[in-house]
Formats: sequence, structure tokens, C-alpha cells
Amino acid sequence: MTTPDSPHRLPNFSAGPATIPTPVLARAQDEMLDWQGRGLSVMEMSHRSKDYMAITKKAETQLRSLMDIPDNYKVLFLQGGASLQFSAIPLNLLNGGRGDYLTTGAWSGKAIKEAERYAALGLGEVNLVATGKGNNFTDVPAQSDWNLSDNAAYFHYCTNETIHGLQIFEPPQVDAPIIADMSSSILSQPIDVSKFGMIYAGAQKNIGPAGLVIVIIRENLLGQASDWCPLILNYEHQAEKESMSNTPATYSWYLAGLVFDWLEEQGGVAAIGKINQQKAALLYETIDNSTFYNNPVAHKHRSIMNVPFTLADSTLDKEFLAQSEAAGLLNLKGHRDVGGMRASIYNAVPLEWVQQLVRFMQEFEKKHG
Amino acid sequence: MTTPDSPHRLPNFSAGPATIPTPVLARAQDEMLDWQGRGLSVMEMSHRSKDYMAITKKAETQLRSLMDIPDNYKVLFLQGGASLQFSAIPLNLLNGGRGDYLTTGAWSGKAIKEAERYAALGLGEVNLVATGKGNNFTDVPAQSDWNLSDNAAYFHYCTNETIHGLQIFEPPQVDAPIIADMSSSILSQPIDVSKFGMIYAGAQKNIGPAGLVIVIIRENLLGQASDWCPLILNYEHQAEKESMSNTPATYSWYLAGLVFDWLEEQGGVAAIGKINQQKAALLYETIDNSTFYNNPVAHKHRSIMNVPFTLADSTLDKEFLAQSEAAGLLNLKGHRDVGGMRASIYNAVPLEWVQQLVRFMQEFEKKHG
Repeated sequence: MTTPDSPHRLPNFSAGPATIPTPVLARAQDEMLDWQGRGLSVMEMSHRSKDYMAITKKAETQLRSLMDIPDNYKVLFLQGGASLQFSAIPLNLLNGGRGDYLTTGAWSGKAIKEAERYAALGLGEVNLVATGKGNNFTDVPAQSDWNLSDNAAYFHYCTNETIHGLQIFEPPQVDAPIIADMSSSILSQPIDVSKFGMIYAGAQKNIGPAGLVIVIIRENLLGQASDWCPLILNYEHQAEKESMSNTPATYSWYLAGLVFDWLEEQGGVAAIGKINQQKAALLYETIDNSTFYNNPVAHKHRSIMNVPFTLADSTLDKEFLAQSEAAGLLNLKGHRDVGGMRASIYNAVPLEWVQQLVRFMQEFEKKHG
Repeated sequence: MTTPDSPHRLPNFSAGPATIPTPVLARAQDEMLDWQGRGLSVMEMSHRSKDYMAITKKAETQLRSLMDIPDNYKVLFLQGGASLQFSAIPLNLLNGGRGDYLTTGAWSGKAIKEAERYAALGLGEVNLVATGKGNNFTDVPAQSDWNLSDNAAYFHYCTNETIHGLQIFEPPQVDAPIIADMSSSILSQPIDVSKFGMIYAGAQKNIGPAGLVIVIIRENLLGQASDWCPLILNYEHQAEKESMSNTPATYSWYLAGLVFDWLEEQGGVAAIGKINQQKAALLYETIDNSTFYNNPVAHKHRSIMNVPFTLADSTLDKEFLAQSEAAGLLNLKGHRDVGGMRASIYNAVPLEWVQQLVRFMQEFEKKHG
């Protein structure tokens, strides 16, 4: 039964939009019609109002603290998702130079495709450093085989390929400013922001609701946008306007702040990182200790956020998905590009849900293995 | 006292993000942790899931019905706000031709400024048809004085200037496809969509939360985007992908659907339009029947959504704002570009709130007039 104290909440392994911590939703629910006695919802506040400005400042300060972001980086809360950044990056940063791109899966593949369109129009050059396509994106090409440019304007890669479940845990050692799409790994474990020129992440995995994208950019990269860049996508302009060139996604920004509150209560990024390691280890052990389940990704690049797996007998896929859903384990279907199953286990997925999933997997194997 | 049945809700005259109907917020509150027994929030649903797809289809069907949108128009639910459309319009539709722009205030002024940037880059030509700047945007230049282009690619205007409180109630008679920024007037009264080539509107006034922008575009205008257009801003591409080229602002889209439910319950756009007329008439009468308050806009162009007004003695502005806020009447400060006061009275502002405001204005006049 659902009561205010025990809402009906099922284990949700969606790749994004993804699970949000129950206490965050409960607080948003509580504040929905009347934020702190002001007689209106956050959703109804002018983005220029004192209360709302305080909400945004608090969120930015928290993110800076959680990620230990140096002072010479701007933090922008923008709209359009990470995919719009695939265009914004060359429009802001290619500037007649060469953009180096490492392709390790679907998302980094989309990023270079958009950059190549702009290179073809004369915005600069785009260079494919290496691609993991040859091994179906189950491993990262060895850096000794990379074709890095001299004096590249930037080096772009994706820290965690949500679809392929492939993660690069340490930034590569390259000379160019590193731009990282961290949509599905941001805040999942400590990183050294100072090693990056720019970090960006769609919110809908580890930050909050879809419709918000966070850009963390070193100040010395600002100010070189092409005239072709839409004003709203111009990082320097948005930095000057504190992400309010136009009305931002106000409610999503507020919810991000509530997620940051929750993350602080968990002990911050290092603490949640340990739980993430535990969750991932449990799932991969279950897979590896069985001949029934399989994950093809090279061990050192196995994602701690997205765990794709297949059944030895793929004719059982439908049965697995039907039974897991009937058991209240939601959204385990793999992405259509790779098939099979996928469990996304972002920060907000508690260890208990992963334990439930593992029990289900073991029972399913007993019945059908 | 605030109870679930009578939440603490104050009259909110914010220009946007603006008031959302209390029953909509109450329903969102109710469904926050568990949508229809599914064990998860709408915010946590995959945008490709059956439940979420049904939510989006329902919202689109409702909007089509509420606005009587002909079948040869696509309806897109995008991100980035109306301001990003200022770039998307020339990038999608200028196509080497001439864009005619009518400037009647701050927002139409921003739209042409962005288009002019792209014209300077060779995307086409931009023509200022007329501007109301000479009279401080208190009136619309007579159409007999307009400098219309032959064979323009499009004619752009803003139906309602939120800052200046100036509204154009009927689309002008021009040959080119009409593009209208309806951010602050959409759904406020019946319009004939077939007279427009494209309508767009940021959601944060009459539709829902900030972070969503709706584009209604006639199909024959699709397919002529410049290669410089970011993929995510390409209307044809987004139409093909049913607004899901990337993850949309899922929660905002759902809330828009709840607002459409509420609007249907009010009797639809014609019914709410009558109440809007009443609300505006009451406010303008109060202003006109006084020498203490003033609104400078030509009567036939006075906005029924945004009512700016000044005090004869502007040294009393601060006192008016302090006392109105103390009386629980929120967000009456005028935009910094024009000063004075502004009451935004969108669909979700009930007549009673306007009556409260009028009583306050009359009492303030008695004390200080």
C-alpha cells in the first residue's frame, strides 16, 4: 500500500531519464504548491527574483564544492541536452583549428558527426583520433595507436558510453584542452576537473530531470565563438549572463540543487563512488560467475553506471524482460542499437535494488539455464 | 493556515515564469513519486517508454484540439526557449531569401537582431518592415507605412510584447508566410492557425514550466534549413523524430499536458478568452478612471496578458511595490527596460486575483493620490 511514508517506488534501471532519489522527489512534492511559505511554486518564480537567484547560486556553489571545481572555471546551467552541445562545441571552440575526436561508442560518434558537418562548412578541421568500431565498441583503442593532431584546438571524448557500457576512468594524457561528455558519469566518482578544458553533461542521469545541461568550462576557452553560433549557445555570452541570457529551465535547475543536497547527505562524490563500485562489482560478478549471462566489454573499461548484458540464448530475452517487469524491476531492456539487457545503476539507484536484480537474475538462470 | 485542501497560494502577477493553475500543481504533486501506480515519477521515465509516449501523444492531441491546428502543421515540443528560436528561424527558413521583421518592442527587436547577424554572414537578407521605437513601442506603426518585401521568405512579428504590454490581435494581411512569436499570448484567445506559417511560444507563460518551447509549423515550410543549423534545431529533423532527436524536456512536456487538461475543464480557449477580456477590462478601467495610474499603450493594442502601468508620481513606485508585496500581491514590478509596474494576467491568474489587485490599487490611490 502506498502511504506518504512509504510511497510505491519500484527499482528503475532506466538509462535516462533515470531514477531520482526518493527524498528529492518527496521534497519537491512537499514544496510543489508553496515554496518555503512564499505562496508560490518554484516553477512560478521569476528567474530574476531574489528567491530564485538564491536557489541557483546555492546549486552552483554546491556543484563547485561536490566536484571541487577550480575558480577559473565557469559553470553554466543551459538547455537543449548534451546533443545540442555537439553543435555548440565546434561553434564555440573549433575556431579555424583542428578538433580531435575519439570515438568509443554511439554518443562520441554523434559528437564527431556534428563537428564534421561544421568542418565541411569551413569552420575548421575535424580529426578522428581512433575508433573502437572494429571491436563493436567493447574496448578503447590503445593510445599508442591514436592519431593525435599537433596543436589541436581541443580533444573530445565521452567518459562513459551509456549504450555500450564502456567507461574511460582517467582522462587521457594529451596536450590539447580536453572536452569530455560526462552525461552518464558526472558525479559518480571523484575526478580532477583541472585536467579538463570543458566538461558537459545532460542532467537526466545523475543530476536531475531532462531539459538541463551543465557546462563547466575553463575561462581561457571563452571568447572564440564563430559568428555562426546562435547567441543562446555562446558560452562567453551565457557566462556573462550567468546562464540567463534567456529564461533558463528554472524548475530543473532547482531540482538539480535538491539532488546536490541529497548527494551531500550521502557524504559527497567519494562516498557515493564507493557505493557505485559496490553496485557495479556485484552485477559484473553475477554475470562473470555464470555462463548464462555475458558482458563483452574489456574489464578495465566496464562502466560502473551502465551494465549491458546478453543471455547465452537470446531467444529468452523477451521472457527475461517480461518476468523482470512482472517482478517489479523496470526498464531493463537494452538499447535498440545493441539489443539484450541493460541495467543503469546511477547514483540514485540504491544497492538494495541491485541486490534485488541479482537475485532475480540468479533465479531466472536456475529456471532457464 | 496551509492544509492539503487549502494550500497557501498568493496572487502572483509574474511575467514569466508565471502562475500555473493550482489544480495542475496539485495533480503534479500527487503524481510526483508514483505516476498512476507505475512505481516511478514521470521525471524518471524513459522518453521512449510506452507510458511516456502516451503522455506526449495526449498533450499534442489536446493542443491540436484546443487551437484547432490543421493536419498539415507539425507540432514540436522543443528546448531552449523562444530566444533560441530567434536563431533557429533564419537558420531554418531564410534560405537565401528575405526575412521581413516588424519591430513592436523588446522581443521582436531581439528576433530581428539575431536574424541580422545571420544575414550579415550571407544566409539571406533581413528587412525591417517598420518599428514602433519612435513612440516608445506604445503603438503599432500603421500598415500603410510598412516597407514590405516582394516575395519575402517570411514575415515575422510578436503577437504580444510582454515588456511593453502591446498586443496585435489579428495577424496582418501580408503575402509571405507569417511567423509569430506567441510566447505570451498563445492559448489566451482563439486564433486561426491556418493564417500562420509558423507559431512558436516559450511555455513559461500560458503552457507550463520554463524550458519548453512549442513550434507549430506548416509542413510546406520544412526542408529548407541551412547546413549551419545545429541538428537539434532543424525543424524537419525534429518533425521526423517527433521532437525526440534527443531526450526532450520530459517533465515539462507532461506538465504542459496537465495544463491542457485544466484548460479543457475551463471550457477551452474561447471560454478562457472571455475571462481574460474581463480581467484586462477591469484593470484598464481602473487605470483609465484614475489620474493616479497611467498606461501609455494605444487602446486597440493594449495587451490582455501584460498590463504595465505607471504612477503619476514615480517617487511612490517603491512604496507601491513594498505595500503590494506586504498585501500578498506578488511580482508587480515592471521590467527594468520600462520601469513602473506590470501585472501579468495570464490564463492561470483567476479573476479574483485581479479584483484583489484593483482593490489594492484603489486603496493605495486614496492614501497617496
